[in-house]
Amino acid sequence: MKWSKYFIPTMKVPPKDAETISHKLMFRAGLIQKLASGVYSYLPLGLKVLKNVENIVREEMNKAGGIELLLPALQPANLWKESGRWQKMGKDMITFIDRHGREMLFGPTHEEVIVNIVRQNINSWKQLPILLYQIQTKFRDEIRPRFGVIRAREFLMKDAYSFDIDENGLENSYQKMKETYGKIFTKCGLKFTIREADSGVIGGKFSEEFVAEGECAELEVGHIFKLGIEYSKKMNAVFVDKEGKEKPIVMGCYGIGISRIVASIIEGNNDKNGIIWPFTVSPFHILIVPVNLEENLIRNISEKIYLNLNEKFEVLMDDREESPGVKFSDADLIGIPLWIVVGKKIKNQKVEIKIRKENRFVEVDLENIEKWVFDFTNKIH
Amino acid sequence: MKWSKYFIPTMKVPPKDAETISHKLMFRAGLIQKLASGVYSYLPLGLKVLKNVENIVREEMNKAGGIELLLPALQPANLWKESGRWQKMGKDMITFIDRHGREMLFGPTHEEVIVNIVRQNINSWKQLPILLYQIQTKFRDEIRPRFGVIRAREFLMKDAYSFDIDENGLENSYQKMKETYGKIFTKCGLKFTIREADSGVIGGKFSEEFVAEGECAELEVGHIFKLGIEYSKKMNAVFVDKEGKEKPIVMGCYGIGISRIVASIIEGNNDKNGIIWPFTVSPFHILIVPVNLEENLIRNISEKIYLNLNEKFEVLMDDREESPGVKFSDADLIGIPLWIVVGKKIKNQKVEIKIRKENRFVEVDLENIEKWVFDFTNKIH
Repeated sequence: MKWSKYFIPTMKVPPKDAETISHKLMFRAGLIQKLASGVYSYLPLGLKVLKNVENIVREEMNKAGGIELLLPALQPANLWKESGRWQKMGKDMITFIDRHGREMLFGPTHEEVIVNIVRQNINSWKQLPILLYQIQTKFRDEIRPRFGVIRAREFLMKDAYSFDIDENGLENSYQKMKETYGKIFTKCGLKFTIREADSGVIGGKFSEEFVAEGECAELEVGHIFKLGIEYSKKMNAVFVDKEGKEKPIVMGCYGIGISRIVASIIEGNNDKNGIIWPFTVSPFHILIVPVNLEENLIRNISEKIYLNLNEKFEVLMDDREESPGVKFSDADLIGIPLWIVVGKKIKNQKVEIKIRKENRFVEVDLENIEKWVFDFTNKIH
Repeated sequence: MKWSKYFIPTMKVPPKDAETISHKLMFRAGLIQKLASGVYSYLPLGLKVLKNVENIVREEMNKAGGIELLLPALQPANLWKESGRWQKMGKDMITFIDRHGREMLFGPTHEEVIVNIVRQNINSWKQLPILLYQIQTKFRDEIRPRFGVIRAREFLMKDAYSFDIDENGLENSYQKMKETYGKIFTKCGLKFTIREADSGVIGGKFSEEFVAEGECAELEVGHIFKLGIEYSKKMNAVFVDKEGKEKPIVMGCYGIGISRIVASIIEGNNDKNGIIWPFTVSPFHILIVPVNLEENLIRNISEKIYLNLNEKFEVLMDDREESPGVKFSDADLIGIPLWIVVGKKIKNQKVEIKIRKENRFVEVDLENIEKWVFDFTNKIH
């Protein structure tokens, strides 16, 4: 991608309401833009990171045997009356009366919807266990939205639901998800701790939350619940066991805040100059910085490096007619892990590669760039 | 993927309210399940097709120079008052008052939001033209939702917006999108016609719609608009031209109904037994059908074929303990383009490959399966 043909509106000054480093940097680096209180647009760089995190989550969920589906945001109130949560949710839930007078809501969570699907399609022990998940936008009318995408009114979540024949099965499913969550957060470059938590309006008998390390103390990036038979009993989700006896399905549920992970990664990976993306989630792997586009040699060689690397990596080339100062400070801000700086040393067939995380430059021969980058990426994987 | 570990709840009888062939087949093949009037869950097979279509759209939009971002569904009413559409939209738009008393809505379309981003970040002719797009869930409280996902209240759309310095620029952007839409629909296996259309509440001075051929008359699948300066003037989205003069940005917008495409593909690709997926969007490329799992040779060879092909294609293996009759009728219903049937001829090192579209079987030597499949896929690409 050429910077001049892309859309990265970087800013010098963070918005007034930004309290956390991630909120400030997501805005300044052109990742998000505020539309209303707790409502954000993801600009191209921000969306790329969001998608990278989403794909890491999907890959690990599939490895754990999860089956992906997609549930609607719109839900009928009667399902929530069945589970008894219609009254419990309070003003956090966005509800409305549709044009035909029916009570509807925008889902802050999807236990009722998934139980409704399962009770209509699963009725035998032979169909269990099953682990269903989705990656989908959720809505919550937060009383005080803040910290940018960390406490927002519209956010992207992965929510998974396990269905087992008994408590042992639930224990297995729960432990597998706990392990999977560890892999996901580690792959995203997050350090985290796990602690026992309050199950709140989700319910159930036991839950643990994954808290990302960082300056921002706010909530969790993951939360896993042993729900047991709470929903199954209320909503009559039953199966016939090996002996022919009807029993309620034993359930667990497992949430990850995808958009929240993006902010948490920044909380844990930044310096005074900007973001330092882990390679796995970075919007681009490599940034090519020609220091002066008016010099033919610099321009041509930069173009050549770009074309070559672009086939193997996600590459951004800063082809703007800006001073090296502006280019370097924007480069620091948006945090691409490797920069290839094409400057005066190109006369001697050399470029400088900056490792953003270590804040140091390495001189590399033109002909060795590709090998150097491959070696670097192999080391960190 | 093994069928027994997956979730494909096929049905013999379509729902009572299903009027169109696509609605009937999407339900019967386990692609969707109804949650409320005009609100559907995408079950695993349905989601896979939706994602395949989404990826075709994304690929072609990127090739045309489009830049992807993601706008919120939640929008503040004041933006719509600026454009003058707050009153125009009527009961189709889902609105609510948030807990702090602010008027909000769930976006049926995103002209206001994108103009708001552009006017805050683009102010010079040097930044134009630009083509921004998103793939995102939209909401519309249809008075009479019907035809399954074709006229739904929650649906997935690609909406793109072009910004140019003048009418000539708009004409270029518009024609490029028109051409891109042709490529997208053709790649999805849709036959279509283009006709001049009413611009409705979107506005502007000229629009054309893409109508998919098929039994269901409802539909357009794509609609492209020359908006001109209608929104730019009302919302003050201006740029400074080469001569230093301030001018309104000239705009176009371009929508594709992603979930609607899925239904339209089925409308145009089915027979009395079920769906016939085009290879490009099929949830799986190959279905392996062992006719009798109790025979060791059949089971082992099927497993071997599965492991081998699964690395190169999306493969589903029907490992259920069901009769060949049930397996074949389910296979017809879900419409995977190629089936590898492992039956009695395996003793002579032969399998039968069914080409779903042509409804015929071809005898292939065990050792030639991979080559045969590659040749087949190369021919249709």
